[in-house]
Amino acid sequence: MFVLVNLKAYPCDPVAVATAAANAADDSGVRIAVAPQAAHLEAVSETGVETWSQHVDPVEPGSQTGHTLAETVADAGAAGTLVNHSEYRVKLADLDGSVRAAERAGLETVVCANNPAQVGAAAALGPDAVAVEPPELIGTGTPVSQADPDIVEDAVAAAAAVDPAVDVFCGAGISTGEDLVAASDLGATGVLLASGVAKADDPRAALDDLVAPL
Amino acid sequence: MFVLVNLKAYPCDPVAVATAAANAADDSGVRIAVAPQAAHLEAVSETGVETWSQHVDPVEPGSQTGHTLAETVADAGAAGTLVNHSEYRVKLADLDGSVRAAERAGLETVVCANNPAQVGAAAALGPDAVAVEPPELIGTGTPVSQADPDIVEDAVAAAAAVDPAVDVFCGAGISTGEDLVAASDLGATGVLLASGVAKADDPRAALDDLVAPL
Amino acid sequence: MFVLVNLKAYPCDPVAVATAAANAADDSGVRIAVAPQAAHLEAVSETGVETWSQHVDPVEPGSQTGHTLAETVADAGAAGTLVNHSEYRVKLADLDGSVRAAERAGLETVVCANNPAQVGAAAALGPDAVAVEPPELIGTGTPVSQADPDIVEDAVAAAAAVDPAVDVFCGAGISTGEDLVAASDLGATGVLLASGVAKADDPRAALDDLVAPL
Amino acid sequence: MFVLVNLKAYPCDPVAVATAAANAADDSGVRIAVAPQAAHLEAVSETGVETWSQHVDPVEPGSQTGHTLAETVADAGAAGTLVNHSEYRVKLADLDGSVRAAERAGLETVVCANNPAQVGAAAALGPDAVAVEPPELIGTGTPVSQADPDIVEDAVAAAAAVDPAVDVFCGAGISTGEDLVAASDLGATGVLLASGVAKADDPRAALDDLVAPL
Repeated sequence: MFVLVNLKAYPCDPVAVATAAANAADDSGVRIAVAPQAAHLEAVSETGVETWSQHVDPVEPGSQTGHTLAETVADAGAAGTLVNHSEYRVKLADLDGSVRAAERAGLETVVCANNPAQVGAAAALGPDAVAVEPPELIGTGTPVSQADPDIVEDAVAAAAAVDPAVDVFCGAGISTGEDLVAASDLGATGVLLASGVAKADDPRAALDDLVAPL
Repeated sequence: MFVLVNLKAYPCDPVAVATAAANAADDSGVRIAVAPQAAHLEAVSETGVETWSQHVDPVEPGSQTGHTLAETVADAGAAGTLVNHSEYRVKLADLDGSVRAAERAGLETVVCANNPAQVGAAAALGPDAVAVEPPELIGTGTPVSQADPDIVEDAVAAAAAVDPAVDVFCGAGISTGEDLVAASDLGATGVLLASGVAKADDPRAALDDLVAPL
Repeated sequence: MFVLVNLKAYPCDPVAVATAAANAADDSGVRIAVAPQAAHLEAVSETGVETWSQHVDPVEPGSQTGHTLAETVADAGAAGTLVNHSEYRVKLADLDGSVRAAERAGLETVVCANNPAQVGAAAALGPDAVAVEPPELIGTGTPVSQADPDIVEDAVAAAAAVDPAVDVFCGAGISTGEDLVAASDLGATGVLLASGVAKADDPRAALDDLVAPL
Repeated sequence: MFVLVNLKAYPCDPVAVATAAANAADDSGVRIAVAPQAAHLEAVSETGVETWSQHVDPVEPGSQTGHTLAETVADAGAAGTLVNHSEYRVKLADLDGSVRAAERAGLETVVCANNPAQVGAAAALGPDAVAVEPPELIGTGTPVSQADPDIVEDAVAAAAAVDPAVDVFCGAGISTGEDLVAASDLGATGVLLASGVAKADDPRAALDDLVAPL
């Protein structure tokens, strides 16, 4: 299982969470990555944790102001990027462009989608993985694997029907090791987390709990 | 073959083009539809021609201002709708919502896309058809079937791999009967046209030329 | 006072509301206009009521698909248009372009904004009027003139400071004649209404009540 | 004069340009700032140069993925931010929100606009400065102060009519000290530059030339 911790725009200390994640990954052997805001990428990657970007734009180096260039986030230490998070939905043509831009810069890609039909669509663009996150469960504390297990299984089937090489992650409400095991049982090979770790009093303890059953 | 004439925002007489299309369809037996701007849907549908919308928004009836509601375009006489035209690209999640909205209102759907990867993605959303239109050829007079035949074949393959029930149309630069035959030979079951008919001095003659070889 | 009834995407009968508005305007001498969806513009204008568009795009006639062209809504009978409604916010550069497009087509313009600072900004673009509508009051039934009278007075002052030729309208929660008088007392020369008329069992009675005190 | 160097998404070495700018500012006493991409803010600010962000989003700390939070760019060392650059146009309501977000985080603000009407609109939102940059001159090497001096004077007048406290900058095609003097003579108190410095073989020499006449 791949555990990807999205720090969103939370007022947390990104370096503290990143350090906790780096240590939890080392001690458990579980792959754990942290996705801070662009301006924190360098500070986070210096902790040694696997670092991801929250977004990249479908642009090439050149006359672009205010955009997130794939090459630049790679240069700042990112190994991969989310695209099309439910808090940052993009046009289909731009999603294609962002996945191509990420590939160009050597970044892994996880495209978010909110139902199995969109998971199938995203898989057709050839990212490394697609993450299904029902928007109505994000931030609720109710894990998608429990509230709506069918959506995870349907997403796994939808992606497999389009391109078996595309992994399926799931997200929304995941915070315990039990949720992780449930997600894995449904066919997911990774999970997206956010507040459960980023807003925890003790991020390291939250991560240890999470990966304990693996 | 299905011939769909997009009137765009051309300063043409939509009723004159619609009447020409209705007559050409009647005389040839070829399915021909006309897609005017929303404010012209009713006038165009009153000519008896098959009428399509250029876009519908992913919204339900209610508190929405300035949007194109699927039920309303159906009420004004539309039988189908384009979505995601290269001049009106939409977010993946909204594209899904627009296809669902069109289905809800009983409209056929053609989703536009500009390369085979996006055709596959669009097909995963379950529209009636996907149209591949390389943006760089739109309005050039050089038919896609001649300038880039591979893109049409690859689009047909991409859609078939995702959902064999989804038809593939092609567009960009198509203006002659020969282009139509070439498109059909490449596996397309419909074509999108615009300036070749809408801006023709004699739209009826342009349509007759177009469907003559069928 | 100018009473502008926005039909939004409500599942109402636009022709019935338009007829009621035309009759109420004739009998009362109050200026009343109706803004239907684009596909209903022609049917509404045929009732003889003053007809407005809910939106126009910042485009010229030509290769534009799915857009609302100012010339086309004028051709379908519109005398004016809303732009930047809180349900259809646009970019500053496009707002400028839409006001210019409306002028080009001979349409009056009312630009919506949700606070006095944005009212001042909108006034700088030179529309005929700016409408202040606090989004949190839309559809509540609590009139802005009662819930937040300061915002109307501040909007009147903000517009006057930038361009005294720009009228100020207000909207959100207005449904009675008393609300209209209150809006006028605060300096507004027009009001935007929607559900209070469009969803009324008897739109004519709702309009008569509204304009009775004028 | 304030010289703001926008590094856009150029494949330049941001730290080298920043160091050159820091030294040129120290030696000349002219205020010079550098605006890198978000992921380079920290590295650039560590050079000691005044650092600006290319954009901030109209959001608060919290559940926002992929956005540029004002507090975060301030934390990474930014003293100010551009908003609404012609390569990143935003909605009027979001522009208001971004200026408010920047104020909240203690960032100075320069709002870009492409003509005097939009300069007036931007000034009404109360930023520290507005920059007029005719899009058709960006990257041409023809300075706006020479190609279209009226637009700068009209922008200065438009801003002054709305709020005399708002400074006016100009940009597009500026690369020499002569251009800077001309801009100042037209009433501008700052300039935006990009390729003239960022893509120069010797950024330090380019900056020294630029500020020599001041």
